[in-house]
Amino acid sequence: MNEARTHRLDPLLRPRSIAMVGASNQAGRIGGMPLDLLRHFGYAGRVFPINPKYEEVFGYTCYPDIESVPETPDLVVLAIGAEDVTPMLERCHAKGVPAAIVYAAGFAEAGEAGAALQKPLEAFVTRSGMVVAGPNCMGFANLNLQAHTAFASVFRSAPPQEQPGRVSILTQSGNVCSAVFALVRKLGTPVSQFINTGNEASLEFSEYLEFLAQDPQTDCVIGYVEQLRHGQRFIDAALSFAEQGKPLVIYKAGETEKGSEAVRSHTSALAGDLALYQAGFEQLNVIRGTDFAQMADLAYLSGFRHREGGRRVAIVTMSGALGAILADKLIGAGLDVPTLPQDVQEALRKGIPDYGMVSNPVDVTGNLVNTPEFVRSIFTALAECDAVDTVIVYAPGYLLDRMADTLVDICARHPRLFVAIDTGAAQCRSRLADAGIPVFDDLGRATQALAPYCLWLARRAAVARWAELRKMPPRHDRAPQLPARLNEHDTKALLAQYGVASLPEKVCEDALAAVQAAEEIGYPVALKILSADIAHKTEAGGVRLNIADPASLRTACAEVLEAAHRYDPAARIDGLLVQPMASGGVAELIAGVTHDPVFGPALTVGLGGVLTELYRDTSHRLLPVDTEMVGDMLRSLKAWPLLDGFRGRSTADVAAACASIAALSAASAALGEQAQEIEINPIQVRAHGKGAVALDALVVTRPLA
Amino acid sequence: MNEARTHRLDPLLRPRSIAMVGASNQAGRIGGMPLDLLRHFGYAGRVFPINPKYEEVFGYTCYPDIESVPETPDLVVLAIGAEDVTPMLERCHAKGVPAAIVYAAGFAEAGEAGAALQKPLEAFVTRSGMVVAGPNCMGFANLNLQAHTAFASVFRSAPPQEQPGRVSILTQSGNVCSAVFALVRKLGTPVSQFINTGNEASLEFSEYLEFLAQDPQTDCVIGYVEQLRHGQRFIDAALSFAEQGKPLVIYKAGETEKGSEAVRSHTSALAGDLALYQAGFEQLNVIRGTDFAQMADLAYLSGFRHREGGRRVAIVTMSGALGAILADKLIGAGLDVPTLPQDVQEALRKGIPDYGMVSNPVDVTGNLVNTPEFVRSIFTALAECDAVDTVIVYAPGYLLDRMADTLVDICARHPRLFVAIDTGAAQCRSRLADAGIPVFDDLGRATQALAPYCLWLARRAAVARWAELRKMPPRHDRAPQLPARLNEHDTKALLAQYGVASLPEKVCEDALAAVQAAEEIGYPVALKILSADIAHKTEAGGVRLNIADPASLRTACAEVLEAAHRYDPAARIDGLLVQPMASGGVAELIAGVTHDPVFGPALTVGLGGVLTELYRDTSHRLLPVDTEMVGDMLRSLKAWPLLDGFRGRSTADVAAACASIAALSAASAALGEQAQEIEINPIQVRAHGKGAVALDALVVTRPLA
Repeated sequence: MNEARTHRLDPLLRPRSIAMVGASNQAGRIGGMPLDLLRHFGYAGRVFPINPKYEEVFGYTCYPDIESVPETPDLVVLAIGAEDVTPMLERCHAKGVPAAIVYAAGFAEAGEAGAALQKPLEAFVTRSGMVVAGPNCMGFANLNLQAHTAFASVFRSAPPQEQPGRVSILTQSGNVCSAVFALVRKLGTPVSQFINTGNEASLEFSEYLEFLAQDPQTDCVIGYVEQLRHGQRFIDAALSFAEQGKPLVIYKAGETEKGSEAVRSHTSALAGDLALYQAGFEQLNVIRGTDFAQMADLAYLSGFRHREGGRRVAIVTMSGALGAILADKLIGAGLDVPTLPQDVQEALRKGIPDYGMVSNPVDVTGNLVNTPEFVRSIFTALAECDAVDTVIVYAPGYLLDRMADTLVDICARHPRLFVAIDTGAAQCRSRLADAGIPVFDDLGRATQALAPYCLWLARRAAVARWAELRKMPPRHDRAPQLPARLNEHDTKALLAQYGVASLPEKVCEDALAAVQAAEEIGYPVALKILSADIAHKTEAGGVRLNIADPASLRTACAEVLEAAHRYDPAARIDGLLVQPMASGGVAELIAGVTHDPVFGPALTVGLGGVLTELYRDTSHRLLPVDTEMVGDMLRSLKAWPLLDGFRGRSTADVAAACASIAALSAASAALGEQAQEIEINPIQVRAHGKGAVALDALVVTRPLA
Repeated sequence: MNEARTHRLDPLLRPRSIAMVGASNQAGRIGGMPLDLLRHFGYAGRVFPINPKYEEVFGYTCYPDIESVPETPDLVVLAIGAEDVTPMLERCHAKGVPAAIVYAAGFAEAGEAGAALQKPLEAFVTRSGMVVAGPNCMGFANLNLQAHTAFASVFRSAPPQEQPGRVSILTQSGNVCSAVFALVRKLGTPVSQFINTGNEASLEFSEYLEFLAQDPQTDCVIGYVEQLRHGQRFIDAALSFAEQGKPLVIYKAGETEKGSEAVRSHTSALAGDLALYQAGFEQLNVIRGTDFAQMADLAYLSGFRHREGGRRVAIVTMSGALGAILADKLIGAGLDVPTLPQDVQEALRKGIPDYGMVSNPVDVTGNLVNTPEFVRSIFTALAECDAVDTVIVYAPGYLLDRMADTLVDICARHPRLFVAIDTGAAQCRSRLADAGIPVFDDLGRATQALAPYCLWLARRAAVARWAELRKMPPRHDRAPQLPARLNEHDTKALLAQYGVASLPEKVCEDALAAVQAAEEIGYPVALKILSADIAHKTEAGGVRLNIADPASLRTACAEVLEAAHRYDPAARIDGLLVQPMASGGVAELIAGVTHDPVFGPALTVGLGGVLTELYRDTSHRLLPVDTEMVGDMLRSLKAWPLLDGFRGRSTADVAAACASIAALSAASAALGEQAQEIEINPIQVRAHGKGAVALDALVVTRPLA
């Protein structure tokens, strides 16, 4: 209660006093349950129930109206109908109340009538500057203050919380908040903040997230999102979590058409581009929640405060089968199970019989466990081995008990993350946990939480690097206003300023000029119609390839002009484009920048051609990117081997491709929102050392506001 | 005990009497634990501990040696060292004992020395015909007889079993058997047989499976496999499960290189072709285990004996968010969440407020639950709706309680599968379960078990159809002995007998004949070197395409002959092959038959070209297949749209492609194992009605034994 109160959400999330408008004296009712909880858990602040019907509820003096409350509460909770909300907020504001929570449903999520109610609410909030949570939310809880404003029965049924909460739950659904809270508490992990955002008429997910990033009582956030309304604020908050080494775990709903339809009906929100959510989360090192139980396990795991490590795991079991299963699962989830170095294997073999395994997974066999000195030498070797980051010990209860002393002792001496899986009922569980060793009781659950956690550890450096890149001043000056439309030649010239290479080409007025240009370029040439009005030149019959001589070129000129006219008689023709035939390509790539309504400018890279579309083999990143990041994108494509000498092909000039694609990032930064889309399709990537060139490019412009 | 004993494994799996060689009087020792369990759980058969050191152990009279036992036991358990095993088995056999279990490790899994011990054991078993389980196994349990022969502490710690067991556990690892047993019992599901197969020196997985298929006390098997040694017996047993509507759930280890390496070290077994395991399991309607908890959930689900249904699910929740999450998860797991028909939506809307949803997921909103007549009308509408197979109700405990009466009543009237998910602590759980409604307490776990179960229901018809197809007599007579090698022309001629179409082509001795052939075929033509010794003709420079005139053809003839000679001077040249240029293809496919060491002949189909290889976009089936099955294979390819009019392309002649590919199945049946591999690469598929032709084909022959 004595912490500095500097954040605008403090009255909402760390209230010193709470009023409840629409108070009830029944614990089963919405207006009663929070009061019952405040009393039951001994909230130390002042509580003001408001209802003209009662003198007292749950031992608190009850007031007839907000005006009669003897002081100005930090926070008012409105347990009243939708139509009464805005007038009541005005009265609270007049009293000087800084923050409110609105339970009522029946706003934007309930069709036109509801939307009509939400508008004046939003207008009031903007006008007044009051902090208003909801509407259509379940209320909150600060468990460290026992400040309960949620009508959620789960607080009564969950195990009581004895230690200070370090994990906060932040969701766009009250039901999800309750369900996740129950699972987190079931594992004994203490919770700090319980927040669900409802309709977000004013306060939205990312603003809470920003608060939690700064909150010293929050070491980890478990979140649930249907739609982000403020992508840039989300990015900033997520980077702050990353910088502080606070894990941020978010479940994103709407992965399928049906799910996203349900989300839309639910919150009247667009689910957004899922591929970009996935890529953006990875880039920001947000851990993707996949299951409520997995999220609770991640909260548990984060409490051990291991903040260094990576994806290389050593597995120790007493069973070859369980070792094989764990290896399959961990590798399937993105981790590495490296073969141990020869010297480590030799060290292990001293203690492990012939029918055991030393390469990783390590099968120490059941017999070994009776020999504590060997157990010690094996775990010491694994704690000291540079080739692994994490050691997983899978043993049925009684065998784990026999190794516990050794494990505790080794973890006191070595910083390495050890994790235990006990499918029995080991006595040593809490002792191991106290020594910094998380204990899981199911192999599947252990994998589902541990793998994303280890990947989070492994990605910490990359996100720090990107945060730096994002802070760097742009390499190019802000570009002047672009013309409304750019043809292919103009586009390539524009992109060339930022470093996108293309072939020399000539814009010609007529066939005569084209023949002259071809003489200079050298046959064979390609001929294209040049018009900002014709985006799909091939479809329009406006492209001829492999033209070998002046006669053919003259015919081709006539043909493309006629075809273009037939395709779109209104199109303004800027001329004829003569290009050298692009030979020597190892592969063709597509790269494009779009402005996502949530995340802003983002880059997509893929292999050119129809199959890539069918196989959805693309990679996405939020901008800015540099050549190193583009290299990572290319290597993440399933088609990457085509650039890397697959089956005797030439290796491609990946460095040149990366430079051209990274140049799009610089172009986007300079052009800003006036370049709504930039696409190079295709980029021809030639053999190593031979470069990469844009064969065609497109910029869709939008006038600056 | 009184059932007919007709199966050769009866003495092992339904023993009327058990002897333990190497008996101990300590429950913590291998030779003592089973005796302790037999006594504790009251096994009704006779028990004969054998150890010269004791007079009595666990209240059973102890005998100094097998010879002194006063009768011939059904089953002897050997708790003795590896080197003593075979001599002891000989003594037991001399006594007339029909079955034995061997615990000892140190056989084939322990390098050369162990393999040397296993050989005489195998020879003895073959000679004697004795039923021998193991070695290196943990022992068994028939829980319905309380016949315990396993040294597994889990029987003491698991909840006592009161109802007759209907689920059997069959694994290739004792540790996995114990772990799965614990989870199955935790859910209260009673177990029938607990079997782990160890090294399988004689008795192997599929023979146990065959027993369990016939076992009236087994309705469902939960299995774990590292390697199948007898694929045809496995197929027969799996089809018997399918026919009887007994779910067969199998976890296959070795999904990754590391996992399969661990499996190899563990059982000295090859993990086999994983893609074929996956395809074969699906074709046999074996449910793939993915996690021990999921397998236990499937055992639970199978106990409700719903044997009809399919993949179309209706979701009922009180929360839009949870509906969206469930839809995402179920669709992600392969089910459908269809939009409900308009009349059903209208019926639901009568009870559901505007801010709820009726399309599916159905959000009845929390308020509705207070109105039992609406709850009834909604569930009735969903129970009667033809557009769905299964109804999932997700509600926190107290809301589920309020709906319980209605649910129980509706399930008594309608055969539809209803499933409940209760994330709270509903009082009604056992009442729902008694009414045939499975209850899960986690959304993720519910999905992981329910999705494969519904898919199993949906696939029942297809596997029955395949079982019929497999029984049908082959369409063609057994083929005579093939020559040792076949060139392209011979291969096409051979395959043509079974219905594989190809283009007319001419085998020519020299350039003169080639020119004459080209005149008949019509230019342009293709020219290929013809040699059974040159499999990779293009690589050898032995192919020329688009030859337009006699002069070019003559040059080409000289060139390919020279190139072939340079490529392999020893290759026997059968001539020059002149073919018409194949034009008009919509897509090119690859189809091949191989003989898998486990499953036998199998078909692989994919799109031609290098990208298919990178994207691993292939489909597999065990033979035989018919055109309908080939059609399913093609439709399961990610590249299927290319055959189906993707982006304005022509639709392909899929029927012709299916006929050509199905012909491979007929060819394989007729040729038997002498055709080790048959491959058509590529099959050119033309536009609808224009057919499909093999452009090249290969048969790798092996002399008949």
